[in-house]
Amino acid sequence: MSYPHVVIVGGGFGGLRAAKTLRGRPVRVTMLDRHNYHLFQPLLYQVATATLSPGDIAAPIRWIVRHASNVRVLLGDASSMDVEQRCVRLADGATVPYDFVIVATGASHAYFGREEWAEHAPGLKTLEDALEVRRRVLLAFERAEREADPARRAELLTFVLVGGGPTGVELAGTLAEIARQTLRDEFRAIDTRQARIVLVEAGPTILPSFPGTLRDAARRALRRLGIEVRENTRVTQIDAHGVDVGASGAGGASGAGGANGAGGASGAGEAGVAGGASRITAGTVLWAAGVAASPLVATLGVPLDKAGRAMVTPDLSVPGHPDVFVVGDAAFLLDEQGQPYPGVAQTAMQQAEHAARMILRRLEGQPSLPFHYRDLGSMAIVGRGAAIADIGRLHMAGFPAWLAWLFLHIFMLIGFRNRLVVMLEWAVAFMTFQRSVRLITYQK
Amino acid sequence: MSYPHVVIVGGGFGGLRAAKTLRGRPVRVTMLDRHNYHLFQPLLYQVATATLSPGDIAAPIRWIVRHASNVRVLLGDASSMDVEQRCVRLADGATVPYDFVIVATGASHAYFGREEWAEHAPGLKTLEDALEVRRRVLLAFERAEREADPARRAELLTFVLVGGGPTGVELAGTLAEIARQTLRDEFRAIDTRQARIVLVEAGPTILPSFPGTLRDAARRALRRLGIEVRENTRVTQIDAHGVDVGASGAGGASGAGGANGAGGASGAGEAGVAGGASRITAGTVLWAAGVAASPLVATLGVPLDKAGRAMVTPDLSVPGHPDVFVVGDAAFLLDEQGQPYPGVAQTAMQQAEHAARMILRRLEGQPSLPFHYRDLGSMAIVGRGAAIADIGRLHMAGFPAWLAWLFLHIFMLIGFRNRLVVMLEWAVAFMTFQRSVRLITYQK
Repeated sequence: MSYPHVVIVGGGFGGLRAAKTLRGRPVRVTMLDRHNYHLFQPLLYQVATATLSPGDIAAPIRWIVRHASNVRVLLGDASSMDVEQRCVRLADGATVPYDFVIVATGASHAYFGREEWAEHAPGLKTLEDALEVRRRVLLAFERAEREADPARRAELLTFVLVGGGPTGVELAGTLAEIARQTLRDEFRAIDTRQARIVLVEAGPTILPSFPGTLRDAARRALRRLGIEVRENTRVTQIDAHGVDVGASGAGGASGAGGANGAGGASGAGEAGVAGGASRITAGTVLWAAGVAASPLVATLGVPLDKAGRAMVTPDLSVPGHPDVFVVGDAAFLLDEQGQPYPGVAQTAMQQAEHAARMILRRLEGQPSLPFHYRDLGSMAIVGRGAAIADIGRLHMAGFPAWLAWLFLHIFMLIGFRNRLVVMLEWAVAFMTFQRSVRLITYQK
Repeated sequence: MSYPHVVIVGGGFGGLRAAKTLRGRPVRVTMLDRHNYHLFQPLLYQVATATLSPGDIAAPIRWIVRHASNVRVLLGDASSMDVEQRCVRLADGATVPYDFVIVATGASHAYFGREEWAEHAPGLKTLEDALEVRRRVLLAFERAEREADPARRAELLTFVLVGGGPTGVELAGTLAEIARQTLRDEFRAIDTRQARIVLVEAGPTILPSFPGTLRDAARRALRRLGIEVRENTRVTQIDAHGVDVGASGAGGASGAGGANGAGGASGAGEAGVAGGASRITAGTVLWAAGVAASPLVATLGVPLDKAGRAMVTPDLSVPGHPDVFVVGDAAFLLDEQGQPYPGVAQTAMQQAEHAARMILRRLEGQPSLPFHYRDLGSMAIVGRGAAIADIGRLHMAGFPAWLAWLFLHIFMLIGFRNRLVVMLEWAVAFMTFQRSVRLITYQK
């Protein structure tokens, strides 16, 4: 008789960790992903801002697990889970039966019911997203160079980032460097240094998961870069020519709400809109505001939270189906303090390892155990040579945190070649201010 | 009064050389291209075969000419030339008036009236083409891994390259290395080393522009790699499952024709088709067979050759319009021996420089001079560690030619960063057999 079959859906941080945990153990493993590569998402914003190439932050899943002889890799698009028949259904009609399954399909960006915004404000979750963001940013400068109307030119040179988490902050910092340094000698009709960059956050603060002192350091660093930071500011409308914003709480919707009264209307290029709201005219709007679990999770038929994540039991299996595990951004679970786990790679990796271990324990007839998270800290880049890091009791800001960020990310990248090339690209970018991959390719 | 305005259409090898020649001279220059980057086409096949990233062989045109203060760069798609009104019309309706124009728009692949073949046999002229070829090649292996039917699996593992010029030969050699080395440990259901690679050439020989001894060396090198080389073999039909071929001359159409009778039907996976023709069942067909000048050339209203190139006068201007120059693959001119110039980067660069000089002479009131080509030789890669080089009286084959090829191409690449990264990628690929950028992205 053959070994039990474990299917891992998703080749992200969680899926790969699960495969690694099961390598060489008495199970047959199938790793299923709709892409042939693993993507190192923490550096995706650098592809979007033309510092890195897609190939620098991605590696073929087959190559990563090539030495794991009990792991096979299938390229396939999982469209639904059949937990009764115990199989994964693919978009092309094929089915992949399992004895155990680990759903590690992550999240994609979400517009909270305003899906029409997607066209005007692309998010940043896939390589294709990153190339689209890159295309829009570079095209904005090209169009401004050809534009004779000063108002329209100012619009083209305004960039709004919606969402003040690490992605929004990192995008803002890099955009500022591109406008102020990288491009400044290359245009004849415009001064790229005049570009306006606005970071809009609906909640009371950017980088809410970081301690207050580090948030203050980040805010100062962003302002030094000439970035307008608007907290307590909710986006109420996005169209082809900009965004409408209002003070959080005033507009209604949700929120950590209206604590400051000064979020409102001022500044160049803005016009008052009804009810204390104002308008930011902008040629480019990027979305870094919200995520929802991948649609596959909904097909499990188990209770979901409002972001579409499966409510899992403490051992990460779903209620009533001890053979089905959900991990990372696809899962919702509260820790001992009643707090959700952070939506970062560490959570996905630790949960995936736990799920894989629980499968092995089950096969050995042992009871399963609850998941415990070990907080390894978090970091964010705030611009050239500046970052913040929150690692246990150690709070760092500025250059030391930036160095720590660089080394950690180089270390975590998969593959010797990628580490080497990314180090090289960063060195070139830091020394010359150049962005190596400023290519406008593919139009979606 | 301001200086005369020279418009250069196309930022390829020719366009950049023209801009360089005109830098700092008493003219205003506008460089117009529909891409924001210059593409180093000789290495495009390495993007298609996952060795290099798009960013490694492309550089922003703006950045390249940033120090030429009399050159401005416009991103725009030239759709027609109006030689009476003396302006270039763009696809978005704008016009760019000129005093002199240099048309350096190159060529794209052509299917000689069989445009329906494009869908089944993509060519290789743009970055988008290269990513599409990469996608098809990598997907073929992925699909074969999931295919249960042995006949369909063999079809998926068969690759046909149409055209035995440098591009076809280089693609064939790299595909062989990918199948026999790069992928061999990563698949569980298929043996990638069984992949069949067929190089089909309608003329009597592959690499017809090279001397006979070098062609023989190339043929031997390809056969050592397990590549089937089919000369005197004309493709008569291409569909989703393969190609029909016949002996050249037999099928009629054109050709250097039917000198050998042994081109015909044999080999596994082939079935006799009417009239001595045969069929090669193949999941992937790639087109490296023919080019035609860019469509802009036809709007000049001057006589064209059958590949759509403008018939130019000896000084490279078009008849009746001494202010309009056409260079490189967009132009047709015979040399003193009545031979056409080779369709290589050297021709484009030397002609562009000549055209720019003629404009400067005209402005100084001097008569124009006929173009003379200086042959700097040619080279082609035939596989890992093997190449051929024909440089004046020096004929090299094998490893020395391969080294010469590497150094020349590193040297010709634009930008320090690109040189460094490409050297690094080649070193990693040579030492490990790995292809760094095996990403299946965008579907066209």
